[in-house]
Amino acid sequence: MTKQINAVIIGASGYTGAELIRLLFNHPNVEISALVANSKAGQPIRDIYPHLANVDLPDLVTDKVDFTDVDVAFCCLPHATSQEMISELPSHLKIIDLSADFRLRNPDAYQEWYGKEHVALEQQHEAVYGLSEVYRDQIKEKRIVACPGCYPTSMLLPLIPLFKAKAITSEHIVIDSKSGITGAGRSAKIANLFTEMNDNIKAYGIGGHRHIAEVEQELSLFSGKHVTATFTPQVVPMNRGILSNIYVSIADGKTIDDVKSALEDFYADEHFVKVFTNGYAPTTRDVTGSNQCFIGVFADRVPGRAIIVSVIDNLLKGASGQAVQNMNIVYDLPEDAGLSKISMFP
Amino acid sequence: MTKQINAVIIGASGYTGAELIRLLFNHPNVEISALVANSKAGQPIRDIYPHLANVDLPDLVTDKVDFTDVDVAFCCLPHATSQEMISELPSHLKIIDLSADFRLRNPDAYQEWYGKEHVALEQQHEAVYGLSEVYRDQIKEKRIVACPGCYPTSMLLPLIPLFKAKAITSEHIVIDSKSGITGAGRSAKIANLFTEMNDNIKAYGIGGHRHIAEVEQELSLFSGKHVTATFTPQVVPMNRGILSNIYVSIADGKTIDDVKSALEDFYADEHFVKVFTNGYAPTTRDVTGSNQCFIGVFADRVPGRAIIVSVIDNLLKGASGQAVQNMNIVYDLPEDAGLSKISMFP
Amino acid sequence: MTKQINAVIIGASGYTGAELIRLLFNHPNVEISALVANSKAGQPIRDIYPHLANVDLPDLVTDKVDFTDVDVAFCCLPHATSQEMISELPSHLKIIDLSADFRLRNPDAYQEWYGKEHVALEQQHEAVYGLSEVYRDQIKEKRIVACPGCYPTSMLLPLIPLFKAKAITSEHIVIDSKSGITGAGRSAKIANLFTEMNDNIKAYGIGGHRHIAEVEQELSLFSGKHVTATFTPQVVPMNRGILSNIYVSIADGKTIDDVKSALEDFYADEHFVKVFTNGYAPTTRDVTGSNQCFIGVFADRVPGRAIIVSVIDNLLKGASGQAVQNMNIVYDLPEDAGLSKISMFP
Amino acid sequence: MTKQINAVIIGASGYTGAELIRLLFNHPNVEISALVANSKAGQPIRDIYPHLANVDLPDLVTDKVDFTDVDVAFCCLPHATSQEMISELPSHLKIIDLSADFRLRNPDAYQEWYGKEHVALEQQHEAVYGLSEVYRDQIKEKRIVACPGCYPTSMLLPLIPLFKAKAITSEHIVIDSKSGITGAGRSAKIANLFTEMNDNIKAYGIGGHRHIAEVEQELSLFSGKHVTATFTPQVVPMNRGILSNIYVSIADGKTIDDVKSALEDFYADEHFVKVFTNGYAPTTRDVTGSNQCFIGVFADRVPGRAIIVSVIDNLLKGASGQAVQNMNIVYDLPEDAGLSKISMFP
Repeated sequence: MTKQINAVIIGASGYTGAELIRLLFNHPNVEISALVANSKAGQPIRDIYPHLANVDLPDLVTDKVDFTDVDVAFCCLPHATSQEMISELPSHLKIIDLSADFRLRNPDAYQEWYGKEHVALEQQHEAVYGLSEVYRDQIKEKRIVACPGCYPTSMLLPLIPLFKAKAITSEHIVIDSKSGITGAGRSAKIANLFTEMNDNIKAYGIGGHRHIAEVEQELSLFSGKHVTATFTPQVVPMNRGILSNIYVSIADGKTIDDVKSALEDFYADEHFVKVFTNGYAPTTRDVTGSNQCFIGVFADRVPGRAIIVSVIDNLLKGASGQAVQNMNIVYDLPEDAGLSKISMFP
Repeated sequence: MTKQINAVIIGASGYTGAELIRLLFNHPNVEISALVANSKAGQPIRDIYPHLANVDLPDLVTDKVDFTDVDVAFCCLPHATSQEMISELPSHLKIIDLSADFRLRNPDAYQEWYGKEHVALEQQHEAVYGLSEVYRDQIKEKRIVACPGCYPTSMLLPLIPLFKAKAITSEHIVIDSKSGITGAGRSAKIANLFTEMNDNIKAYGIGGHRHIAEVEQELSLFSGKHVTATFTPQVVPMNRGILSNIYVSIADGKTIDDVKSALEDFYADEHFVKVFTNGYAPTTRDVTGSNQCFIGVFADRVPGRAIIVSVIDNLLKGASGQAVQNMNIVYDLPEDAGLSKISMFP
Repeated sequence: MTKQINAVIIGASGYTGAELIRLLFNHPNVEISALVANSKAGQPIRDIYPHLANVDLPDLVTDKVDFTDVDVAFCCLPHATSQEMISELPSHLKIIDLSADFRLRNPDAYQEWYGKEHVALEQQHEAVYGLSEVYRDQIKEKRIVACPGCYPTSMLLPLIPLFKAKAITSEHIVIDSKSGITGAGRSAKIANLFTEMNDNIKAYGIGGHRHIAEVEQELSLFSGKHVTATFTPQVVPMNRGILSNIYVSIADGKTIDDVKSALEDFYADEHFVKVFTNGYAPTTRDVTGSNQCFIGVFADRVPGRAIIVSVIDNLLKGASGQAVQNMNIVYDLPEDAGLSKISMFP
Repeated sequence: MTKQINAVIIGASGYTGAELIRLLFNHPNVEISALVANSKAGQPIRDIYPHLANVDLPDLVTDKVDFTDVDVAFCCLPHATSQEMISELPSHLKIIDLSADFRLRNPDAYQEWYGKEHVALEQQHEAVYGLSEVYRDQIKEKRIVACPGCYPTSMLLPLIPLFKAKAITSEHIVIDSKSGITGAGRSAKIANLFTEMNDNIKAYGIGGHRHIAEVEQELSLFSGKHVTATFTPQVVPMNRGILSNIYVSIADGKTIDDVKSALEDFYADEHFVKVFTNGYAPTTRDVTGSNQCFIGVFADRVPGRAIIVSVIDNLLKGASGQAVQNMNIVYDLPEDAGLSKISMFP
């Protein structure tokens, strides 16, 4: 048995926190040392989440935790709050951050998109963009892992290998994504009532959703040009899952087969990414409950264009699952320790 | 009271048939003369659709109907079957066809997309593409109204006025549509079981769905060029509704305001189309249960691009509702007779 | 055309208010004079309910309405607030109240169940319990119609005729009801988020839900004894619909056939109640979108017991639909004016 | 590491088979030796279930398996077929049967309820009713474990301890259960289409569902009297989960507190059963994805009556999960090996 890892979850009362509790409770190498939720400190977690009523878990506490024996902190706070918290955590802690606060390498971009000054520039230098399959080596070395957003994960896993292989161009990228409603978190809003979202589909943040900032950052990096992409997110009546349709132009001299093989090659040995080039279009239910990303590749009728369908579970590969995968990388554990490779279907 | 119209529904046992029964039963000027469903002839309709158990309706019969006193036939048959049936109907009948059989002006295109020879060329000359707001005048005059497909209705209502106003170009059109599952009809397939589609989203017909044929026909007509558009349909876990995101390039010399005003002007006096230029993104629930199409217009971050969000109820404005609207046009009735302008929300 | 009725909706911004707007806008004999919603006064209704964006409706106002030319007020306020409001309305107004405030004949029972003193005793004398099919004659005469609760409507429509026919006894009545989530109204609560109620079923108010008070009142009246019944309400992941399973004991000397014929006879000529004695178990979708109540009757395996399945749309026959039906009775209109007899299926 | 167990799943292509694949693939002590599905033999499992596309699993084969090195067979066949299959399996195999074929001790009862003669009487003597918490000792010893039905599991877990404690009587037991639609399996039926069951609730098998046979068998055994209980099953629009409301009479001389303590005492040390006596009513989402049964206990307003709310995941504690729990018991593994104690929420 690998040595025991003591973990703290900060921001344990939201959905990504709850999912981390499930994953870490079942993880063979982890002990949950503390569950932090300032506004609910003092309550047993089962009062917030009755589905946790039959397992032993620590009560919720404030962030005044004794971190001496803690190895790793998972941070599930809103952006801005996360920077403040993390800049005060002891330096021996490994930090897996699920917020947007350390994803953007350029503090000006952070200010532009999130409307606040970056207040943890020092920590920014210790951070890596935590897309596991792409930044595995740096994730091992850096102190802070800034886990990607849920939408970006679904887009970048297919797009980065295509740019690395120079199989596509950076023009006319259109991304149309649909998400389950857990992406909106657990706050009480009329717009997210069952009665409002049942049998409904709703586009939002049209032409300007914040997640595109980290996508354009990474695409620009890997394409060598400044990339601007069209992105429309939508919520559909399901709890979990993201399906992104990605419309791209094949590079001059390349064909749809090059697009397919670039993805197949890049992900040939991965636990959690599966590429379909046989005409199968993956669905969200293929992956919900697992840490998988399934990717289907298609030629478009419009000459020179390709269509990529990418699906993940927004709470797992898009958030808490990728966070645990990154922790496994950090501690040299098997990358799938504590993570299901099979979705919960049906 | 306007004169009574005697109507027959041919193919009454499918979902569009059931919806026509509801609409025509409640229509102030229509009497349902017969319900045709060959495979279920002899059964009371309430055995097929228990929700009709408490109203008086004729039993299902074969297509050997005495059409002498019938004024109009609504045809809800599968493609190919529809051509055969309609070519044998008496010539005094007005025909509102909900299939794809008379939508394509070019019989070769029909053969290409539907894999069968067109067998009713004579009737094709009597047919008009029944997009109510665009072809109103011809609908009055022609004997056969070929109602548009559900996806095409959601796309063409915004796109045709934009081409008429020369506000957009024909290049790089990407259409990403999501439909409720009633679009798949009432046949027993594992893929459409509740347990398979609940909490799921699935793309299909990627790069080659048949509905794009009629869309490209109409767009080519109104743009004056041969248009090829990218189109991806998807099913999402809801019964009714289509939301289409349409990504277009604004024409040289035009701006997003021209795009907005082209749509606002075209639909200023319509009962059933509402254009939002204030940043509101319409949702499917805004229109399900009504015959409305709601359209939202947005500038994209990518310079020169616009995003249009269009929603309809696939069974109403996308099928049986537009069919009744067309019948109202044919008989000079108020265009909203028997059609709700308010969706059933929540 | 019957004379125009001027109607005001007080409490127009909730779900029953929205449903009344739809029904009254489409009603051939009604003009909506004003929409009252104190907390949202000054806003156009389309800002609250975008699905109303394409029809002409008055803006929301406070309750300082000039009622001079108003004929009827529909009151969709919470209990207690409703008594206060109605006690101040001018006496020429017919009032259709959808709250619980005038349902209980005994003010002490009101205090016991609703935890507040009854403050409109005078108006209580002018009120009738508005179960349309049972109290039709008194509804015509009384000034205030206290529309039954949604659960009670689903129970009393089958139970009252059985007690009138002395076909069942008052012992061991068990009622297990399941409701769509619109029954919880439009307030922002975590418990009613899509993410919490999707794929979920939840019992609540076990052994003590307020709606049982009016049920026991009516059952005691028609059975001639004090009746205490077991009742468990539940929410299931759907928007509309109530299904109540009612377990009863057949009276000595009576059989299941007596139970069946008692219901068939009572409802033989009704527009909105249909009794099935052929083994068909009605489902909520048979009636959602319509003002129907469908009732199925079954013998139990346990000797001497019968099981009744009753379904309604909680927002229509269980609230706004029955309210309009009662208005039709009051004004001697056809009882189905403006009300659909066919559900919106699928 | 405990010794490796070689397992075969017979009937691997249905939903309980798919769930067993997920559980056994993740189980630390099990190797899946073969997946049997006669009608689909020769196909890779990923063609039937794409969610299994990224893990290594054997292809589907016919039942002509070499069982020499196999330890245990999980049998997920329809009733009758299961008896035939199991009577021909080699005698060294431990058998965990998920069908109804060995649940009824009395072959005449089997014939009465399932309409077929019992054809494996010899094997019946080797079988135990596999309600894990109740029959743990016999499960260890017997060769065949006949796993209880999903509905019966939800009822018997609360009812048996109450009869053992003589806290309730056998009269007037009413059980009203609601199930997710996976309970209907994966066959293509119009009644189970998404479009038919979405936003719907449907009662079926009223007064005579087969699952009551095994319930009455067990209740009669533990109460010492012949018990006849009222039972109504229903499907609601969710994939997984059963919620049973159980209405019982408290025994003379006992109180609601005796009912509560009987359940609390019986389940005090169990991994997978949690009793709530504090007024909390468990919901299906509390347990879906886990092997838990949560039970809430309530006094009814009707004197002398109690209401029990019991929830399970029908595919886990109600089928494949309990099957694995039983295998764990058979092989002296930790009872929760490979089974989640935390549901997948949200």
